[in-house]
Amino acid sequence: MAETRIVTAAVLIIGNEILSGRTQDVNLAYLAKRLNAIGVRLREARVIADVEADIVDAVNACRTRYDYVLTTGGIGPTHDDITAECVAKAFGVPLIRNPEAFARLNRHYQPGMLNEARLRMANTPEGATLIDNPVSTAPGFQIGNVFVLAGVPAIMQAMFDGLKDRLVGGAPVLSRTVSAFVPEGTIAEGLGALQGRYADLDIGSYPYFRQGRYGASFVLRGTEPARIDGAAAELRALITGLGADPIEGEPADR
Amino acid sequence: MAETRIVTAAVLIIGNEILSGRTQDVNLAYLAKRLNAIGVRLREARVIADVEADIVDAVNACRTRYDYVLTTGGIGPTHDDITAECVAKAFGVPLIRNPEAFARLNRHYQPGMLNEARLRMANTPEGATLIDNPVSTAPGFQIGNVFVLAGVPAIMQAMFDGLKDRLVGGAPVLSRTVSAFVPEGTIAEGLGALQGRYADLDIGSYPYFRQGRYGASFVLRGTEPARIDGAAAELRALITGLGADPIEGEPADR
Repeated sequence: MAETRIVTAAVLIIGNEILSGRTQDVNLAYLAKRLNAIGVRLREARVIADVEADIVDAVNACRTRYDYVLTTGGIGPTHDDITAECVAKAFGVPLIRNPEAFARLNRHYQPGMLNEARLRMANTPEGATLIDNPVSTAPGFQIGNVFVLAGVPAIMQAMFDGLKDRLVGGAPVLSRTVSAFVPEGTIAEGLGALQGRYADLDIGSYPYFRQGRYGASFVLRGTEPARIDGAAAELRALITGLGADPIEGEPADR
Repeated sequence: MAETRIVTAAVLIIGNEILSGRTQDVNLAYLAKRLNAIGVRLREARVIADVEADIVDAVNACRTRYDYVLTTGGIGPTHDDITAECVAKAFGVPLIRNPEAFARLNRHYQPGMLNEARLRMANTPEGATLIDNPVSTAPGFQIGNVFVLAGVPAIMQAMFDGLKDRLVGGAPVLSRTVSAFVPEGTIAEGLGALQGRYADLDIGSYPYFRQGRYGASFVLRGTEPARIDGAAAELRALITGLGADPIEGEPADR
């Protein structure tokens, strides 16, 4: 059954601006949520510089290890946009002027505006298929299991929305959160035992300090609703046994 | 001269919550800015899951490649906090109960509260030195060139602030931003030529769309003030030559 296969992905965030702290990345959290929602588990993300060897190495390390690799950034018209040529090198294929990408850019720009710099946005590795850009035309592309998206969040999101038919997930990951004003160190032993009994789930503990009290949110993730229900019931009992009240979801003032 | 050596770092963000999209990471941008400010160049960041093999592999890949590795996350009392044992494995040393860490926790907790789960926070690889935690006591640690910090941002930041004497940077990276309402594709050729003439600088181009117009911020980064001044002057002339007005810094309504 396709439904039970675990499908994995990595995200590569390409750009010096993230590593310098100039830009706060928001693409990773977006992609993480959306991939999980379609049953693709994000296993790793890397933030890498606009450096050819780094990009080539990261693409090759991840594309052999995960079902899908999504990259963001580095596909604009300026000298620091080198993702397309790096992905071509990673796949060992030539970088070509993609005829369909050229046609789209040629329709988009006023006569005389499609200069050499903008034409770079028509370059893809040989064998790539385009990813539509409904915001600003210049397309992303897919080659093998690697999906090359823009770095500007609005454009990246629009590109990702068009990938529905190309990213085939496995069993969707279901998530349930239960919180409590219990210090992590107090519940840790019982929580570890719960994880031991539910090895098919991923149980995370995320502490908070609110209203002058320590507490934590416990996130149960897995693919079987009945197992999550069972673990949630045991977790609520564990919390009650420690003298606290289980809270469904995150605490209200989060 | 120590001042001219390039000092590099990688950041490893450890935690399923970032890869599930539950938590928006803010530690990377903080560390990026602070490392750059002390002359340490952040070259790569990885977001990895609470999975032993992934953590061990990432620590070993990065500690041989960069001057410093900083990790965030996974040093609490719960079962999903496995950073300390993974770093010990990466270095091939035993995980020990660190006497000084134990003493600190023992002073911090009320009698009877320092249970087995909380005692895990006293474990470090053999040979590690502690990193102070002025917020909640449980320390981070350093072994070799690897610095293990908390994941909670306020604690991570307080730990980082205490590392001043242990992170020795090279030449500080200076940064200048000039913006203009010029489409990237229009200025790209001139900007690429500028980068060619200033190969010792890192020139980035970051597009924006504001007030109904396309523009971009151009970031010049390097270690020699005179070179940045020279490139900035040429960049302003380039912008003026394209019929636009150079803006110092980011555009006002950013």
